[in-house]
Amino acid sequence: MPVFLQFLAFLFLVVVHVESEAETFRRTLISAEKNMRTETWQVTHQELTPRAESGWSVRKITLHGGKQEGVDLVILDNGILSITVVPTRGMGILEVKGGKLRIGWESPVKEVVHPAFINLQSRGGLGWLEGFNEWLVRCGLENTGHPGTDEFINNVGEKAQMDLTLHGKIANIPASEVEVVVDREPPHRIAVRGRVDERMFYGPQLELWTEVSAIPGEYGFRVSDTLTNRGDSDSEFQLLYHVNFGAPLLEEGARFIAPIQSVAPFNAHAAEAIQTFQDYSAPTPGFVEQVYCMHLYSATDSRTTVGLVTQNRGRAVSMSFSTEELPCMTLWKNTGAIKDGYVTGLEPGTSFPYNRRIERGFGRVPKIAPGGSREFHIDFEVHSGHEKVEELGRRIEAIRAGRPTEVSVEPPKID
Amino acid sequence: MPVFLQFLAFLFLVVVHVESEAETFRRTLISAEKNMRTETWQVTHQELTPRAESGWSVRKITLHGGKQEGVDLVILDNGILSITVVPTRGMGILEVKGGKLRIGWESPVKEVVHPAFINLQSRGGLGWLEGFNEWLVRCGLENTGHPGTDEFINNVGEKAQMDLTLHGKIANIPASEVEVVVDREPPHRIAVRGRVDERMFYGPQLELWTEVSAIPGEYGFRVSDTLTNRGDSDSEFQLLYHVNFGAPLLEEGARFIAPIQSVAPFNAHAAEAIQTFQDYSAPTPGFVEQVYCMHLYSATDSRTTVGLVTQNRGRAVSMSFSTEELPCMTLWKNTGAIKDGYVTGLEPGTSFPYNRRIERGFGRVPKIAPGGSREFHIDFEVHSGHEKVEELGRRIEAIRAGRPTEVSVEPPKID
Amino acid sequence: MPVFLQFLAFLFLVVVHVESEAETFRRTLISAEKNMRTETWQVTHQELTPRAESGWSVRKITLHGGKQEGVDLVILDNGILSITVVPTRGMGILEVKGGKLRIGWESPVKEVVHPAFINLQSRGGLGWLEGFNEWLVRCGLENTGHPGTDEFINNVGEKAQMDLTLHGKIANIPASEVEVVVDREPPHRIAVRGRVDERMFYGPQLELWTEVSAIPGEYGFRVSDTLTNRGDSDSEFQLLYHVNFGAPLLEEGARFIAPIQSVAPFNAHAAEAIQTFQDYSAPTPGFVEQVYCMHLYSATDSRTTVGLVTQNRGRAVSMSFSTEELPCMTLWKNTGAIKDGYVTGLEPGTSFPYNRRIERGFGRVPKIAPGGSREFHIDFEVHSGHEKVEELGRRIEAIRAGRPTEVSVEPPKID
Repeated sequence: MPVFLQFLAFLFLVVVHVESEAETFRRTLISAEKNMRTETWQVTHQELTPRAESGWSVRKITLHGGKQEGVDLVILDNGILSITVVPTRGMGILEVKGGKLRIGWESPVKEVVHPAFINLQSRGGLGWLEGFNEWLVRCGLENTGHPGTDEFINNVGEKAQMDLTLHGKIANIPASEVEVVVDREPPHRIAVRGRVDERMFYGPQLELWTEVSAIPGEYGFRVSDTLTNRGDSDSEFQLLYHVNFGAPLLEEGARFIAPIQSVAPFNAHAAEAIQTFQDYSAPTPGFVEQVYCMHLYSATDSRTTVGLVTQNRGRAVSMSFSTEELPCMTLWKNTGAIKDGYVTGLEPGTSFPYNRRIERGFGRVPKIAPGGSREFHIDFEVHSGHEKVEELGRRIEAIRAGRPTEVSVEPPKID
Repeated sequence: MPVFLQFLAFLFLVVVHVESEAETFRRTLISAEKNMRTETWQVTHQELTPRAESGWSVRKITLHGGKQEGVDLVILDNGILSITVVPTRGMGILEVKGGKLRIGWESPVKEVVHPAFINLQSRGGLGWLEGFNEWLVRCGLENTGHPGTDEFINNVGEKAQMDLTLHGKIANIPASEVEVVVDREPPHRIAVRGRVDERMFYGPQLELWTEVSAIPGEYGFRVSDTLTNRGDSDSEFQLLYHVNFGAPLLEEGARFIAPIQSVAPFNAHAAEAIQTFQDYSAPTPGFVEQVYCMHLYSATDSRTTVGLVTQNRGRAVSMSFSTEELPCMTLWKNTGAIKDGYVTGLEPGTSFPYNRRIERGFGRVPKIAPGGSREFHIDFEVHSGHEKVEELGRRIEAIRAGRPTEVSVEPPKID
Repeated sequence: MPVFLQFLAFLFLVVVHVESEAETFRRTLISAEKNMRTETWQVTHQELTPRAESGWSVRKITLHGGKQEGVDLVILDNGILSITVVPTRGMGILEVKGGKLRIGWESPVKEVVHPAFINLQSRGGLGWLEGFNEWLVRCGLENTGHPGTDEFINNVGEKAQMDLTLHGKIANIPASEVEVVVDREPPHRIAVRGRVDERMFYGPQLELWTEVSAIPGEYGFRVSDTLTNRGDSDSEFQLLYHVNFGAPLLEEGARFIAPIQSVAPFNAHAAEAIQTFQDYSAPTPGFVEQVYCMHLYSATDSRTTVGLVTQNRGRAVSMSFSTEELPCMTLWKNTGAIKDGYVTGLEPGTSFPYNRRIERGFGRVPKIAPGGSREFHIDFEVHSGHEKVEELGRRIEAIRAGRPTEVSVEPPKID
């Protein structure tokens, strides 16, 4: 090639390079459509955003041994927080680490269990509990609550009974598509996206695109999900974000804060402790779970914020979301013995965790039209230091705006 | 080596080569007995039948991503038709492609689902539907029909109840042995063979050798199965070939043709449309499946033929089989909305798809003696052009030989 | 590096080497904690004990094909006996081979089935039988007996019903940790150790460390298990060693020998043959299992011995264990047709194989305190030649010490 042509080619490459710098980086890690699965992979700020202030990385690894053989993990590290996503378990989030702080909990389940080892119908529909150890686990999509029977229309067009299993299937369905998306423009939002399909013949055709994203250097991140009905008829759905905190955030004297419009105990047992439902006790052997169902006040943009605050008010984690997207806030208090799982769940959802049949009776099982979508956004923030925690408290009080909380001392009547 | 010895060696190799040319080519792809599984592999006509007129190939690939991680596919291409066999799902056939024509259907289930993700007992025994998207899927072997309870003799010799699940287990059992067999003699029949075992302690010991074979350059292929009872006592069995067609073969005005001796609606809902049971409508949202149970006339060799013909009679697919091997012909019409699965099933079987308990009452649950075998052969043909389709019609009328069709307008009485 | 420093380094290495020679060899093969799994591996006496008299080896392989895809095997060969451990199936032992003798049985299940293909709830809770072909399979840990309903306390603190499945889950749980341990000191005991966890949220937190070990050149080996309650409250458990013998040890005229204190038939069917319960018949098509429940006499150290002796008294296998550790001895006679599984089970356990609800009623469901452990040791021996077999008989009679056997001709009354 003559020298001047070489020079032109060089110029062309430079131009292409500069242009692509501005484009979004996109890398498929797992794809049933493209027939691929990446065993290990990583990308760092050095490669994609060398001039950015904060370092970051995304790593893909595969787990081995025992019940976690072949489980995929994607770890998004924004320089401050390291977020471990589990594609094999419905894009749940195993844990979030920031410095010495681990956000998550100590479940009796120690492995990241591959769904092939889970039988949801085990133990009267409680098989889900054999894999439950995530910090954030989605419950749904066909049903999200307690086990029990419900009617459905079967293949011959007749009413038939099915045994709903605890918290539905989505946490035990592997993602069919997983990709990493990095914005080359500041502030360089990094996203791990995954599509989880709950589809069957003569059943739901629900497609959930999940996204966990963070901006390098920030003390927070966002979960953005889009649920689409790919079928040709209206489809019921339920979705609940089961977000679980153990020590050190959960401790004696820790407190749940939120702009509560109304609260009711889930059952008679929870009703006994309704007066202190926002406060946590130390690990208590023999403690039986207490669950509270709330509706929250929101600001004019329909967004609201809830938080879990440590005893000395020196640290908090908050979740902000839309009460239109997630109208039902469930608080799960399970302050049992340490080894049995000392944990609380802050659970915004489209429903409360009663059996779907009950929720339907209360008008809390929404439908999506054919081709329609529903979006869900939750912003998570870590608040360190008394000042930041006080600021969070003020923010929540601003949303409440002096409005009262209606407390039901009795659980709702359920037939 | 002296030159004359080299020459002798050369002669010897030539002789061996010529001899082996005449022998059948046989290659094991998967074998539990030999402790092996081939990730990818292929063979083509260039290697084995270089002088043959038609090209062909057999490829083995492995699927990755989501629910299809680790699923094996074997693709037999006879130069005209490309047949995709799924060893991991009981040697079912995912689809057949010929030129621009795809024979198969669009199920809401998009992935080739690994059996590890299927729980047949889900949804009241309808878990099978979470993986259902094959063109040809075998139903059986212990039971083939609708879910429901049936009695069996348990380990302590007592009658016990079991919940039969829809269409049995065979489609969710991976083949234990898979091999490719190519006849080096013209017409060079190419076969993909697989053994699927439905065996357990205190239960059936049914071994199914399946074979899909084709001759290069032909517009058809053959499924040949041999079912053997490897146990020491008589064994009930059921086998039904659930062969499913969507667009473009299925369309408004398409028609099912067959030399029908008798036909009865499966249930009251199907009875309402008995007058038009051979005709198909356009995709109809809310359509509930209609099922018809038939016995067919056969020629003196006991073979019969059924076909699905397009609206303009320009294309058809036919299936030919023995009414002694497969005495029960079921027609499943499911012309619902496109995205919900617009599909019809032509289903020759040893039984109709009622629950096994009901079928047994009608004397339609056969038994195999210890060590005994039953064979099943189905020839599939693609008929393109009005002339070929008319020829198919004449062939079917020749089998009917003017004999009448007995139509039941009521479904059978079932206790 | 100066020469004298090199020399010092050399000396240091020599010293370290000599010291490590005396240390125990330990190699992790599978570890969920370390995120690893070894595909294939082996170690032999040449490498670790070159000066020992007897050769030995340990090999790790992975099975492929059909339902055994991905199943791990570890084969411990002490020069006399080759013991095949199956980490993927709860550290069960598939078979033991010694010269031409194979200790094990011919199950209708031919593959070493991966738990991903097992649904324990299938067939009315008998799904366990779809993978049952091991020589030694542990039954437990939450329940060990027949299927049926039992009560448990669910997440909301209420009594709920669960369907117990035959013989529990442990045989279908893959080991989370597997290691090989070789004592470098004579007699060079070689051990294959594995940890199987039966853990869940709101359920058992039982951890079972299993160990199979042998001394090179000996005609026996030992199973040593430690069961620990990792939870924070008392935990029920059940454990039964289902040790199964077919031909050639089992044959017409073979005999079960033991220092029996009391024996009762499991049910009315077994009662019919109580008079000959220690004797075996030839393979008998249509034979229905007969089960006998025994308590054994033990020596002052609480150890006892049972044996299976061939017809000509020329060969025997014995099991020795503590009646304090394993107080319930079950004999399972299943001398049916060869192909249906001609087999007898010698089954020491903490319970008899009645449903847990029944066993609890008889006070035979023990508990472990939080953090507490229970140990179980069984010594297996192969006795070849009339002299050795007679010696075994004398050993058992010495344990009996002339004490009588109480025979119940009726099965126990069960509500």
